[in-house]
Amino acid sequence: MNIYLDNAATTPLLSEVIDIMYETSKTTFGNPSSIHSFGRKAKSKIEKTRKLIAKYINADSSEIIFTSCGTESNNMVLKTSIDKHNIRHLIISEIEHPCVLNTALELEKLGKIKLHIISVDNKARIQLNDLENVLQNIKGNKLVSLMHANNEIGTMMNLKKIGEICKNHNALFHSDTVQTIAHFPIDVKDININFLAGSAHKFHGPKGVGFIFMRKDSKLDAFIHGGGQEKKYRSGTENLISIVGLGKALELAYENMEQRKQHILEIKNYLKKRLEEEIEGIAFNGHLINSLYTVLSVSFPKRFTSDMFLFSLDIEGIACSGGSACSSGAQKASYVLQAIKHPKDRQTIRFSFSHFNTKQEIDYLIEVLKKIDSK
Amino acid sequence: MNIYLDNAATTPLLSEVIDIMYETSKTTFGNPSSIHSFGRKAKSKIEKTRKLIAKYINADSSEIIFTSCGTESNNMVLKTSIDKHNIRHLIISEIEHPCVLNTALELEKLGKIKLHIISVDNKARIQLNDLENVLQNIKGNKLVSLMHANNEIGTMMNLKKIGEICKNHNALFHSDTVQTIAHFPIDVKDININFLAGSAHKFHGPKGVGFIFMRKDSKLDAFIHGGGQEKKYRSGTENLISIVGLGKALELAYENMEQRKQHILEIKNYLKKRLEEEIEGIAFNGHLINSLYTVLSVSFPKRFTSDMFLFSLDIEGIACSGGSACSSGAQKASYVLQAIKHPKDRQTIRFSFSHFNTKQEIDYLIEVLKKIDSK
Repeated sequence: MNIYLDNAATTPLLSEVIDIMYETSKTTFGNPSSIHSFGRKAKSKIEKTRKLIAKYINADSSEIIFTSCGTESNNMVLKTSIDKHNIRHLIISEIEHPCVLNTALELEKLGKIKLHIISVDNKARIQLNDLENVLQNIKGNKLVSLMHANNEIGTMMNLKKIGEICKNHNALFHSDTVQTIAHFPIDVKDININFLAGSAHKFHGPKGVGFIFMRKDSKLDAFIHGGGQEKKYRSGTENLISIVGLGKALELAYENMEQRKQHILEIKNYLKKRLEEEIEGIAFNGHLINSLYTVLSVSFPKRFTSDMFLFSLDIEGIACSGGSACSSGAQKASYVLQAIKHPKDRQTIRFSFSHFNTKQEIDYLIEVLKKIDSK
Repeated sequence: MNIYLDNAATTPLLSEVIDIMYETSKTTFGNPSSIHSFGRKAKSKIEKTRKLIAKYINADSSEIIFTSCGTESNNMVLKTSIDKHNIRHLIISEIEHPCVLNTALELEKLGKIKLHIISVDNKARIQLNDLENVLQNIKGNKLVSLMHANNEIGTMMNLKKIGEICKNHNALFHSDTVQTIAHFPIDVKDININFLAGSAHKFHGPKGVGFIFMRKDSKLDAFIHGGGQEKKYRSGTENLISIVGLGKALELAYENMEQRKQHILEIKNYLKKRLEEEIEGIAFNGHLINSLYTVLSVSFPKRFTSDMFLFSLDIEGIACSGGSACSSGAQKASYVLQAIKHPKDRQTIRFSFSHFNTKQEIDYLIEVLKKIDSK
């Protein structure tokens, strides 16, 4: 039995997405920058997808820029807003995804910004007071970059409140929304947010395509220079097939958002309940309410801390994650778990779900865990 | 009748490439950074493609970095080598692709390098003496970036000779080989070259994926920071499906390189001959021997200079290009044509071929041109 419980790392492509990508591969190949019919046909498919994204997040289509992935999106926002808006201070949390954290550290190393890292509590929440304190004590232009939801343990931040604080302190606000776009409704007119980043493969679209929302009154600079595609912000021939796939995946996610959410919540709660019943000493990381419904971060007691634990699950066909997937493949101590002071003598496993998961799969997982526990 | 003669802008996907991408979409979706079986399966497909590229250009697979496109590849080489190797002088030709030219201009604007732009003659050739003169008159670390073949008019540069000159003057050498990879054999052990850039969609692979060759002893710095994918040079979840497509397209290109070349040369020469016979006052741009066999840049006499010329061809189903496709879609005066002093009262059209083109298509094109000429 193969069970995929690592949907925060990446999701399986929907058959409808595969089909439209296949169809597009066969019928449309023009360079969207070409002015002849082959090019115009490709261009129109890209613009249709751009409008779709804009519609769902309540933006203007001119505010959407396609990129090659969520990581590029976050790099582009941080790296190009610094110069464009003469940013002196960058404020992030200590549990940002590596594509924000490592980019911020690089910008600090280059002397481009002073970096302010806000700590989180043991539920992975920043205190909004801490953000206010930092903002009121610094001078010069400021950019706040805070993730909507943590990819490892699921705790979510309140974008609306953070946006208000940023507005009050005249700071630009970017959010890495890679884990939440197409899973939660996001309305950029309701939140004081300047930039956000999305990635198709986190919502059953293809890898290799992402996007940025960039509010009209707070533009970025070009990240990749060249032929001037994507309104000169991101040159390079557009990834037509993947952009079409992103559009279809987004459409299906929005059409089915509530059903998917209910189904996944049931799976998550079922796993939580069964773990509590069957595995002595189990605990859960992060906030249990303000959390991704797609993620359950489980803290296993000492007797599970062997290096072989994840390997044993893999052998039994169960795919899940010790930390995040975005690393060299080597297992390292997670800085996110360190930040929430997760006890070193316990082992955390992230189970992350999609609407494809079933209770039968959870039952199988529990049987495997009990077998491991009894050894 | 729809005739696609714009293969230097982008090429149609091969059915074998479409099929393997479809197959991969259905069977493999893991995040290559995940250590479980889903992830390992994805990872192995990526590494297989990396080895394939390395084999064909005679590199080590550790010297191949995947990117999202040729434009990103060229940006990454120029932008990150500057700091990594403390480059003071960047030397390019005046007819580089916008992704090199505009990146170079940006680096100069930022004060990071002094830019030296070498002129070309009326056949679009740089004089190697000019390169030598520039190199021997400057002090500090140097990077030479010269394209293997010009995308608008096809003239090719001699990488081997340029590499020797760079070696003699202790300069790093990068070549934008986007138009030649998989069309001509390139052996990186035979050429003194440090970096080169390729893009799948120029050889019947998908858009959205490219690569860099980076010689072991002359590394780059990270271009996109994050989870450390691609040996930390280019973070972001790998574009699995497109990488697999790139591999298949490359394999087929190498297996059929000579047959394709012979077929395309026949088409190109046939078009040239028929144009000379049928259109009075026709001329050809660029070097006719040291040239891409895939490109014929045709200079039409004054009576074709109407804005409607390209449009008329498009109406008749013929896709070709006035300049390159990498622009906003607006037709501008080509800086490449200006560089070769193409007469302003003539109209240049680039016809670019693939092995899918036929003599029947050329006959149809000639009929259409004669019809336009007779109006």
